[in-house]
Amino acid sequence: MTGAPTPLVIGLAGGTGSGKSTVADALVRTAGPEHVALLPQDAYYRAQPHVPFEARARTNYDEPGAFDHALLLAHVEALIRGEAIERPVYDFARHDRSQRTLRLLSAAIVIVEGILVLHDPALRARLALKVFVDAPADERFIRRLERDVRERGRTTESVIEQYRLTVKPMHDLFVEPSKQHADLIVPEGGANRVALDVLRAFTTRHLARIARVGVADGGWASAAARAAEALG
Amino acid sequence: MTGAPTPLVIGLAGGTGSGKSTVADALVRTAGPEHVALLPQDAYYRAQPHVPFEARARTNYDEPGAFDHALLLAHVEALIRGEAIERPVYDFARHDRSQRTLRLLSAAIVIVEGILVLHDPALRARLALKVFVDAPADERFIRRLERDVRERGRTTESVIEQYRLTVKPMHDLFVEPSKQHADLIVPEGGANRVALDVLRAFTTRHLARIARVGVADGGWASAAARAAEALG
Repeated sequence: MTGAPTPLVIGLAGGTGSGKSTVADALVRTAGPEHVALLPQDAYYRAQPHVPFEARARTNYDEPGAFDHALLLAHVEALIRGEAIERPVYDFARHDRSQRTLRLLSAAIVIVEGILVLHDPALRARLALKVFVDAPADERFIRRLERDVRERGRTTESVIEQYRLTVKPMHDLFVEPSKQHADLIVPEGGANRVALDVLRAFTTRHLARIARVGVADGGWASAAARAAEALG
Repeated sequence: MTGAPTPLVIGLAGGTGSGKSTVADALVRTAGPEHVALLPQDAYYRAQPHVPFEARARTNYDEPGAFDHALLLAHVEALIRGEAIERPVYDFARHDRSQRTLRLLSAAIVIVEGILVLHDPALRARLALKVFVDAPADERFIRRLERDVRERGRTTESVIEQYRLTVKPMHDLFVEPSKQHADLIVPEGGANRVALDVLRAFTTRHLARIARVGVADGGWASAAARAAEALG
């Protein structure tokens, strides 16, 4: 590698309940949070301040049109250039983008995680590694049901209704076909320790390479060097 | 890692024409042939010296019963213990195991490659990383057709007949279901350079770890050290 260090941009896609956020969290933990800028795609739902609440609640949040692809792409490109971004924060109770943002510094590793991360060609072109996290549909539904009932106070009936109305049709229409763009498919997402270990070898090598370039770049090259040493 | 270095055993499974041997070759090339012991499963077809030639020609070579699983397992275990093996050589023209063998030294990385490498539970238990190389069925058939006509002088008709008679039914019955055991699925096998690069990071880390253990073990630890340095 020559020149200034560039972030390694990893895309993690997969259906609801596939375990993709577990994979993302594991990568953040093993690389060290200070070396990773994590962009959850669902922070990039479109702002819709002029849409009445009732209509916002009925929005189809599982189709590509629900996301602000341009902003997500612009943020990924800014992080690649080494710039900080103001990541939007979505208010899931109000079904709208909140007023606050989260300042995110560029880092050695950028992870973009979400159901449709492999859908947009412009974003795909920015991903050095495209991963699709996979799990059987029944298991994915069960995990979503358990999570929504436990963490979001939803009823079983409402979870089933939303699943049949938008989650599954949009999965079949947009998420599953995006798998064809993946470089790697990780079965059984979060519990797959071997796959996590392979991905970790890849991110650690990147930290080590950045360390070797040894360019002063705002701080993360030397930090990456120490991390690579500790993780190798 | 503590104690004496142990080979990293990688299983590469996948249907005919999936690109698994291309992936295996690429891993051998990047790690360096001296660091890899490669066991193609089709070298382990059963010896059948007492079966008449006509019957041997009609054998179903795509089902688990065609392979000498016990010998393959014994060889993998010997390589793990650091011992050399006498790998069988199969004579595809005579449809029988040949008299000669190939002496194979243990190495830092052991790769077992073949259509049913993830089928046998005893072998699976020995694999530190289980990879399934995947490609669409039509593309796999086309590649097999091209290869068999070009390299083996077969007619299109005979390739189609064998494909319909045994290759595809056995694929659906045994190969495809074995995918569920994979830690990683590599789509579009041999041409998938990103996946190859991720796997290379994993094997290189193993060489580096072995080098760090620094145990004299018949020679491959220090060789691995030099290789890891060059590849890192």
